Amino acid sequence: MSDTSARTHAADGPEAGGELHERAARLDAADPLRGSRAHFVLDDTVYLDGNSLGALPRTVPGRVAEVVRREWGELRIRSWTESGWWTMPERVGDRIAPLIGAAPGQVVAGDSTSVNVLKAVVGAVRLADRERDEILVDATTFPTDGYIAASAARMTGRTLRPVEAAAVAREAGPRTAAVLVNHVDYRTGELHDLPGITAAVHAAGARVVWDLCHSAGALPVGLDAHGVDFAVGCTYKYLNGGPGAPAYLYVAAAHQGAFDSPLPGWNSHAEPFAMEAGYTPADGAVRGRVGTPDILSMAALEAALEVWDGVRVEEVRAKSLALTDFFLECVEACVPSGSVVCATPLPHGRRGSQIALRCADAAAVMAELIRRGVVGDFREPDVLRFGFTPLYTSFTDAWRAARELGAVLRAPA
Amino acid sequence: MSDTSARTHAADGPEAGGELHERAARLDAADPLRGSRAHFVLDDTVYLDGNSLGALPRTVPGRVAEVVRREWGELRIRSWTESGWWTMPERVGDRIAPLIGAAPGQVVAGDSTSVNVLKAVVGAVRLADRERDEILVDATTFPTDGYIAASAARMTGRTLRPVEAAAVAREAGPRTAAVLVNHVDYRTGELHDLPGITAAVHAAGARVVWDLCHSAGALPVGLDAHGVDFAVGCTYKYLNGGPGAPAYLYVAAAHQGAFDSPLPGWNSHAEPFAMEAGYTPADGAVRGRVGTPDILSMAALEAALEVWDGVRVEEVRAKSLALTDFFLECVEACVPSGSVVCATPLPHGRRGSQIALRCADAAAVMAELIRRGVVGDFREPDVLRFGFTPLYTSFTDAWRAARELGAVLRAPA
Repeated sequence: MSDTSARTHAADGPEAGGELHERAARLDAADPLRGSRAHFVLDDTVYLDGNSLGALPRTVPGRVAEVVRREWGELRIRSWTESGWWTMPERVGDRIAPLIGAAPGQVVAGDSTSVNVLKAVVGAVRLADRERDEILVDATTFPTDGYIAASAARMTGRTLRPVEAAAVAREAGPRTAAVLVNHVDYRTGELHDLPGITAAVHAAGARVVWDLCHSAGALPVGLDAHGVDFAVGCTYKYLNGGPGAPAYLYVAAAHQGAFDSPLPGWNSHAEPFAMEAGYTPADGAVRGRVGTPDILSMAALEAALEVWDGVRVEEVRAKSLALTDFFLECVEACVPSGSVVCATPLPHGRRGSQIALRCADAAAVMAELIRRGVVGDFREPDVLRFGFTPLYTSFTDAWRAARELGAVLRAPA
Repeated sequence: MSDTSARTHAADGPEAGGELHERAARLDAADPLRGSRAHFVLDDTVYLDGNSLGALPRTVPGRVAEVVRREWGELRIRSWTESGWWTMPERVGDRIAPLIGAAPGQVVAGDSTSVNVLKAVVGAVRLADRERDEILVDATTFPTDGYIAASAARMTGRTLRPVEAAAVAREAGPRTAAVLVNHVDYRTGELHDLPGITAAVHAAGARVVWDLCHSAGALPVGLDAHGVDFAVGCTYKYLNGGPGAPAYLYVAAAHQGAFDSPLPGWNSHAEPFAMEAGYTPADGAVRGRVGTPDILSMAALEAALEVWDGVRVEEVRAKSLALTDFFLECVEACVPSGSVVCATPLPHGRRGSQIALRCADAAAVMAELIRRGVVGDFREPDVLRFGFTPLYTSFTDAWRAARELGAVLRAPA
């Protein structure tokens, strides 16, 4: 994969492994984010599945217990005001905002990513003239985005057209109402060109919705800086919000006044407790709310976001790239030649925070890796996914994962 | 309100109060559900707001802590299979099912009530011929139902027509695609005629969606017995699932094969982990799922539902009616004549599990009641709501609430 790693690969044995192990230790010692690992509940497992479910932040259990026992159990209904439950969606949204490059007042937490995709895509389409009769989606999108975009197209009288992400910029045209693109491909880990695609979609007179599930918390997104229109994302991967934690919706300030949600629930009403028969949408991010917010999960997420205090996303990105570079080098050194093919682009500008390796019998290989204490995941048809979460993944983790992968692939079947 | 209570009212003083207090104690001692109260975290407050947020079941804190610390913290991603997370929406749905008269396999938990209203109303409309061009909604519906029904109408090319609930049966006709009705009016506590309206809507060739937010867990619903098509409901009122707990969707078995959801998220795919670009809906209740389920809140709900083990909804209904009858009698005895007007229908067949009293300065009156330890709520414009949750509300609670209300209304302004 590079000259250096090819040279190391020639020494495919204990010495190379030892040298890499020492380098891993030195890299860990010099890591400016090494202190963050202590904020998480971790054990001896090499956990490289934080791109699917982030580890438990130590801030969470106590906070959840407090919400259950004190806020729900003792204060009950009073907590909607006294414990700040009612405003939690926009408050949590404002905590997520700096991680994705958004000024306050544009992000609201709640619902699942799929539900937010519907809000964003329908919202984007409704900003377009009627003659713009198509919605573009990246062809290798995470499936739910494609399914929901198809539903949005059907319900707004448009046609959905899948195109390769690399082709979106040139395919967007006068018939395009809206475009939905994943920032990082969930399978290959490829990072798509958010600034370039956004500019091209705008040049075509359309709006873009970015799905940040696999990028937020792993790399700078820069929503405001690049003039993104809408974005959605989950919070249970790099944001460590917990299983099925509330997702979020970003509506750029410039579009908030015209944002016309397909889910105008009472929580998005200008005066929700007036209980009016007619719908008058609230101003601001709150317009993206729908029903009663899910307080237990939202409180867990809010506590989980405390691990970001004082952390700069740029630092996280630097470590992410160093980790994935080092992991690839270790794979070259430890894994039998030709047994895996890297599906993740090598240029830093096109790489997210995971490495996808294609190999034969990938499901069985991953099962054995997990048995050995290295947790990644398998994705159809032949992909081993290794996610690198810079707040708690160490260089030693990367080395151990590669070493075990080599052992599994060298073992007789 | 009745001859008996009118007689008591004549003795509006300490003796009447004392006699009622003694009767309350006797009724509590004879209450077959009196043991259920011990399953909840309660204090000296008279909590009559369980129709807004149910009290905390004692089963919940330990279960939530286990999910956070063990299932998320230690098992992490493995819990999707090993801790049964993945199948939780349909498993919790099957626990709710008997409470609403549904056989297994027709209820799925997840999302908010508002989101489920969209699924159900669009789903119902899509079963209708194109010439059926209107959706009916009860005119005094909880606001979000009306807002979401309007959105469903807009996205399916229909017109929304609000009509009084009592008129739905005769207004449904050859142009009606679907009807959305609240089983119990959130403001007045009036119970609408589910069997009669369902039969009339069917006779008109349309489908009906029932919103059970204010009835499930308080009275028998009988979805299967009455041939209901779709239903939705929340779980944080009489089902005690916690603030913003996941809602649920019922799709009658007969419609499941044709159910065409406006939110076809990947969790409703026949093979979600095949990650197919094309959408093939799953069979059964699972088709009502959308995105990744919210595990922390869903686990709290699942634990909360344990308080229903061994409880028959018919018993709950009998106690609910006895409680509201007794409360009205106490109000007659304790409250200055003419100071309140009952907005809840007196016939048992038309009464839910709350009493709504209209009075002057209702917001201030409720604030003072809360200060005195009697928690109900205020609804615009002049309604005091008192919810009776038979699993933990006692007859003594009802008496205390009426006595304090009398004291507040007799106090100089």
